[in-house]
Amino acid sequence: MDVERARAERAMSASGESWLAIPPRSPFPLASLPFGVFSTQRDARRRIGVAIGAHICDAGALAASEGAPHAAALAEPELNAFLALGRGAWSEVRAWLTQRFGDARRRGAVERHLVVQGDATLHLPFRVADYVDFYASEQHATNLGRILRPGQEPLLPNWKHLPVGYHGRAGTIVVSGTEIVRPCGQRKPPDAAAPSFGPSERLDFEAEVGFVVGVPSALGTPIPLAQFREHVFGVCLVNDWSARDIQAFEYVPLGPFLGKSFATSISPWIVPLDALEAARVAPPPRTQPLLPHLDDAAHPWGLDLELEVRLNGHLIARPPFAGMYWSAAQMLAHSTSNGASLRTGDLFASGTVSGAEKGQRGSLIELSWGGVEPVLLPGGESRTFLRDGDEVAISASAPGTRGARIGLGEVRGRVAPAIH
Amino acid sequence: MDVERARAERAMSASGESWLAIPPRSPFPLASLPFGVFSTQRDARRRIGVAIGAHICDAGALAASEGAPHAAALAEPELNAFLALGRGAWSEVRAWLTQRFGDARRRGAVERHLVVQGDATLHLPFRVADYVDFYASEQHATNLGRILRPGQEPLLPNWKHLPVGYHGRAGTIVVSGTEIVRPCGQRKPPDAAAPSFGPSERLDFEAEVGFVVGVPSALGTPIPLAQFREHVFGVCLVNDWSARDIQAFEYVPLGPFLGKSFATSISPWIVPLDALEAARVAPPPRTQPLLPHLDDAAHPWGLDLELEVRLNGHLIARPPFAGMYWSAAQMLAHSTSNGASLRTGDLFASGTVSGAEKGQRGSLIELSWGGVEPVLLPGGESRTFLRDGDEVAISASAPGTRGARIGLGEVRGRVAPAIH
Repeated sequence: MDVERARAERAMSASGESWLAIPPRSPFPLASLPFGVFSTQRDARRRIGVAIGAHICDAGALAASEGAPHAAALAEPELNAFLALGRGAWSEVRAWLTQRFGDARRRGAVERHLVVQGDATLHLPFRVADYVDFYASEQHATNLGRILRPGQEPLLPNWKHLPVGYHGRAGTIVVSGTEIVRPCGQRKPPDAAAPSFGPSERLDFEAEVGFVVGVPSALGTPIPLAQFREHVFGVCLVNDWSARDIQAFEYVPLGPFLGKSFATSISPWIVPLDALEAARVAPPPRTQPLLPHLDDAAHPWGLDLELEVRLNGHLIARPPFAGMYWSAAQMLAHSTSNGASLRTGDLFASGTVSGAEKGQRGSLIELSWGGVEPVLLPGGESRTFLRDGDEVAISASAPGTRGARIGLGEVRGRVAPAIH
Repeated sequence: MDVERARAERAMSASGESWLAIPPRSPFPLASLPFGVFSTQRDARRRIGVAIGAHICDAGALAASEGAPHAAALAEPELNAFLALGRGAWSEVRAWLTQRFGDARRRGAVERHLVVQGDATLHLPFRVADYVDFYASEQHATNLGRILRPGQEPLLPNWKHLPVGYHGRAGTIVVSGTEIVRPCGQRKPPDAAAPSFGPSERLDFEAEVGFVVGVPSALGTPIPLAQFREHVFGVCLVNDWSARDIQAFEYVPLGPFLGKSFATSISPWIVPLDALEAARVAPPPRTQPLLPHLDDAAHPWGLDLELEVRLNGHLIARPPFAGMYWSAAQMLAHSTSNGASLRTGDLFASGTVSGAEKGQRGSLIELSWGGVEPVLLPGGESRTFLRDGDEVAISASAPGTRGARIGLGEVRGRVAPAIH
């Protein structure tokens, strides 16, 4: 097995893609080059890294050593300054890194700025400005309508006219690997006269995709669909942990609050939109006419990302992002259509990604149909909602250039017992 | 009149309160000392100021000139570093300023750091972290229930068990005086088959009170009622501009989004909690038992703030904050009861302040009862919702020490025509 892997790595290296040996099924081939923030035991400073294969390139140090363009932004301890530079700079830095990892003559100069991923600690890659969470999967919205309002029309009248969304808590966005303490809150069973306070009994995950804003916009200036890629740098994975019982009692009429605000996990690597060109697809046909500012016939931003959700290591769902009714470009156009401004570090999340089939549902409330159909796990175990100690890992991959697949890495979190 | 004012100023100055002549009805006597951020034409740098009478004291420059404690935080261009210092430092700086303005021997050293308010431009005083907006007035929630869901129980089942709230957009919080461009959005009249996109036809204000968090908290650590004043620095006024027609179409099931996110105005001066000791009152009796973490019998944080709302200069409402069902301490305890952390610069707003009488309602949707009872203005004009060019100004005052009244200043904004 190791012999096979070594042969494959030599073959890839020899193919001219990169002088660096990249493990065959690495989510981070040369075509990906996602950005994050890392530190090591030897050097505790947070610094900007770019993942490639099993390594991290210390982008700030490499840029400084060469006097490369945008070295100052790359020397920051978070991505925000780099994100604010805009598409021209993002492409320039991507081309520079692609050249450095493609040209074997650069090996000596670059290699000294590589860290093995296993030796690094990954941090929240950017300072989150505002966090908006959407509800953009028709299957997810329909499933929740059926589960929570049985017998009624599952989709509310606004759903096909605009991407429904709300602001979440930016200050409790945490990086993958952060322990998720089971939240306490007020829950009221249907037969109880009053709510009681205690640990959530219906703790859930939501598998989502996030979009990171780089370039800000001025108050009063909507962002048309055509400008999406001028403002959005890239994509990450999001687990929007949800306490269904807390949410159910609190959410009328102003929406989710404490059922969501205890923690939202994001993956450590932000994959540039530039790396996802081959993943762009047309969104599904819309069954209601779209208003002009949301009509994306000329600017389709569907993305063929295949998500995988693992619970304690077992694959329990494969939600397909390609089927999302609303694209991220529409989310951005909608969010700014009232003149609201964008800031560097704004995060837009898609809402739970769910497909039409049962095995494609991106949350336990859907997979267990409101808790009545337990999800069976190998070894005789089953789940309706999450137990203490459970670990949820969401990963994704997408078509890359030249037939390669590129990964988005993963967002992972383990549930710790409530503190009370 | 000028002679009278000059005589009054001499009298107050001679009373030993301050060597600085403070206009008799100034919102900012020595007992107030609110913090803000200002610049002048001569010096465009943003710097921390403290309002006193008709002046602003350049707190950073004064502190630097004396080597006063916390001079570094006061030398910042925004309040965040000062806010993060905590109650000990806040009290120390307040005592230092009180002494400097009370002791006539300090006049020469202090006077050179004073700027006339009319010569200053006021800026957003702090970088807003997360913004949470509540719905804490029973009268407001009841009025909106009656207007929007006639014939049904106006208060929803959760309302008396927890302070209902949601996250707003932190990035579009603007300082008083900022022009408010009428937002566009999707509105659907009841008889229309589909929504149309255009300028809001039901633009409203909401008179609210905001609470500014200074000291952050760790994820997983609820803030009990007793700890409120260790975390919250002070109070400002908030106008939570609301496009009722946009909000009505979008808000199910995830709450308000674009109907609110175009702009939220705050007053430029943050009045320390320390200045409001004499304004503390018991909240109204609660008609439902409170869960232990919200039971504030031992920690009443009602505040006797009297708000005034002016439309184009005409007083149209006097909402009483003392009658709010939920206190800011309860809002903070609730918001952190699931383990959510606080950051320096978090802003908690009360929601619309409305009293039981018609003239005490803090929004036009209530004053005009959903647009069917126009508010009459002098000169034969009337309003249901805001017209382009309308200016809304919200001010407030409260009992101060020794029988004085202290003001919270005002938050003001004028409606500009939609851009489309």
